[in-house]
Amino acid sequence: MKALYFDGKKMTFDKKYPEPNPDEALIKIDLAGICGTDLEILDGYMKYDGIMGHEFVGTVVKSDNSNLVGKRVVGEINAGCGRCEYCEKGMERHCPDRTVLGILERNGAFAEFLSLPEKNLHIIPDSISNEQAVFVEPLAAAFEIEEQVSLQPQWSIAVVGDGRLAQLIIQVLKLKCSNITCFGRHKNKLQNLVNGGTKIKIGIDSSDEQSFDMVVDATGSNSGFTDAMKLIRPRGIVILKSTVASKENLNLAPAIINEITLVGSRCGLFRPAIDALATGTVSVDSMIDSEFSLENFSDAIEHAKKPDTMKVFLKP
Amino acid sequence: MKALYFDGKKMTFDKKYPEPNPDEALIKIDLAGICGTDLEILDGYMKYDGIMGHEFVGTVVKSDNSNLVGKRVVGEINAGCGRCEYCEKGMERHCPDRTVLGILERNGAFAEFLSLPEKNLHIIPDSISNEQAVFVEPLAAAFEIEEQVSLQPQWSIAVVGDGRLAQLIIQVLKLKCSNITCFGRHKNKLQNLVNGGTKIKIGIDSSDEQSFDMVVDATGSNSGFTDAMKLIRPRGIVILKSTVASKENLNLAPAIINEITLVGSRCGLFRPAIDALATGTVSVDSMIDSEFSLENFSDAIEHAKKPDTMKVFLKP
Repeated sequence: MKALYFDGKKMTFDKKYPEPNPDEALIKIDLAGICGTDLEILDGYMKYDGIMGHEFVGTVVKSDNSNLVGKRVVGEINAGCGRCEYCEKGMERHCPDRTVLGILERNGAFAEFLSLPEKNLHIIPDSISNEQAVFVEPLAAAFEIEEQVSLQPQWSIAVVGDGRLAQLIIQVLKLKCSNITCFGRHKNKLQNLVNGGTKIKIGIDSSDEQSFDMVVDATGSNSGFTDAMKLIRPRGIVILKSTVASKENLNLAPAIINEITLVGSRCGLFRPAIDALATGTVSVDSMIDSEFSLENFSDAIEHAKKPDTMKVFLKP
Repeated sequence: MKALYFDGKKMTFDKKYPEPNPDEALIKIDLAGICGTDLEILDGYMKYDGIMGHEFVGTVVKSDNSNLVGKRVVGEINAGCGRCEYCEKGMERHCPDRTVLGILERNGAFAEFLSLPEKNLHIIPDSISNEQAVFVEPLAAAFEIEEQVSLQPQWSIAVVGDGRLAQLIIQVLKLKCSNITCFGRHKNKLQNLVNGGTKIKIGIDSSDEQSFDMVVDATGSNSGFTDAMKLIRPRGIVILKSTVASKENLNLAPAIINEITLVGSRCGLFRPAIDALATGTVSVDSMIDSEFSLENFSDAIEHAKKPDTMKVFLKP
C-alpha cells in the first residue's frame, strides 16, 4: 500500500509498504489530518518510527464485527492492554502498556490502510463530512477539559494561543462559559473568534495580569506557560495542553505562592466531539485549509508549518 | 528592643531596635520558631529586609480590643488590605497588597515585640504549651492541603521529604487517609512516623513508580518535584509545598501526558491547627529540638540548618 514512513529522522513516501493484517478491524483511510503533534514528532519530539498520523476518517473493510464492515468511522487513538485497572475503567488512554496510533508503537493514518481494535471505532453519521470527521480527535482533546474541571458559567477564561486546538477549545468552552478572551499572535486567524463573541488580545496588558479564573495554554510553545502564569489569578486553574512548552526553564514558585492548580490535559473521549459536530454546536468549517496527496506530503508539511495555516489534510 | 535585623544579606543582633508603635495590636513575643523559609530568606530567596520570623507565640500588651489584652496569642502571618475581593472572602493570604510577617514588608518575630492586626490573632488555650503553639503556623500550612483537595480515605499517598513540614503533613493526612508512605533521606528522623503507622522508604523502587493517588512534595529541594512526578499515577494529584524546588529545570511534559493535577499549596487557616493541638489529634512534641536566645542566633541558625534538626526556637 501507499504510506508515509518515518524512520525517526526523515519521512519518505513508500508505494509498497506492507498492508496491516492484524487481529483487529482493517480500515481504508478516506482522509487524514496533520496535527501539531505530527510536526513535533517530525522535529524529534518523541522517539517514534513507523507510519505517522492519528487524525483520520475511513471505511471499515474487514472486522469480526459485521455491523462495522462498510461503515465510515473515526477511531480513538489509544489502544490499551484491556486488562489493567485503567482499561477496566475505560481509561485506555492511561494504560501503561498502551500503543497510540501514529505516536507510540502503532502505525498511523498517513497510509491507505490502518488497523485498530473494534472498541476504538465510532461510526460517523452522514451529516458529518469527511473533513469535519477528521476534527473529531482534536475536538475530543478540547472536550477533555470539561471532563477534568467543573466549568463555572461565571468564570472569566483566557485561552493563550490562536491555532487549531486553541480555536476548538474556545468553541467548547463557549458552550458553558461566555466570558472568554483569546491571547493570540496572528490577527487574521481570529476573525471567526470575534464573530463568535470571544474577546481578542494581541499581547498581555498589566490589567490582564492575575485576572482570569481559568487559563488554557494551547500555544504549543514555551512562552505559553509563562503567559498563562501571568494571567491566572490566585487560586485559579491553568490547563496545560502544550507538551512541547514544558521542556525548558519553568518557574513553578508563583504556582505555589498563589496556590494555582495546574491540570495536565491530553486526549479525550470521542463521543461528545461527534455529538457536537453532528448537532452543529461546534463548527469546524472555517478551520478547513487544504488537501494534499500522500505523494505531495512535503508540500503538505511545509504548508502546515506556516503560522496562519489551519487544518491540512492528506488523501491517500 | 532586642531584635535580629536582616539587611537583605546579613542578620545582626540589635539591642536598640525601635519598638513597633502602630495602629494594630502590640504583642510581646514569648517564643519564636525558625522555619525552612527563614533559612531560604537568609540565602537570598526573597528580597526582604527587616526583622525575620513568622512562627511565634506571644502576649498581647496593647490593643483596641480589650478582650485580647493580656491574652496569649498566635497570629496569621498575612495582613491584607481589607478592601479587595480576596480580603472580603477571608483570603487575606492572597490579597495582592498584603504584607507578610517576617517575609514581605512587615517586621517579624525575631524580636521582643511585633504588631499585627487584631483580626489576625487567635487566643491559645492553656492546654497548648508555648513550644506547641509555635507549630500552629506550619501546622496550618499542612491543613491547607485538605482545604484545597477532597481527600479520599482509600487513597494511597506518598509524602516526599522527612523534615518538619513533611512530618506535620503526614500527621494531618493520617486523620483522613491511613495508607501513607514517606520517602525520606534521614532514617533517624523517621522512627516517630513508623510508630504512627506510616510506611518509610529511603529511595524510590521501580514498584513505587506511578503507583500513588496523591503525592506531596515537602522536600524544600529541587529533587522533590522530580521524585513526586515519578511516584504519581496517571490522573493523580501532586501537592507542591516546596517553593525553593521550583526555580530550575523542570519537565512538565509528563504532567500533561499523564494528566496530572499539580496543586500549589502555601499558608492555611489557623483554626483547624489550633483545634488539632488542643485536642491532641496532632502531636508536635517529638519535633521540639532546642532553644536559643536572640543573642545566640548564629548558633541557632547553624543548628537549624543541619539535616537532622527538628524545630529550633528563639527566645527574646
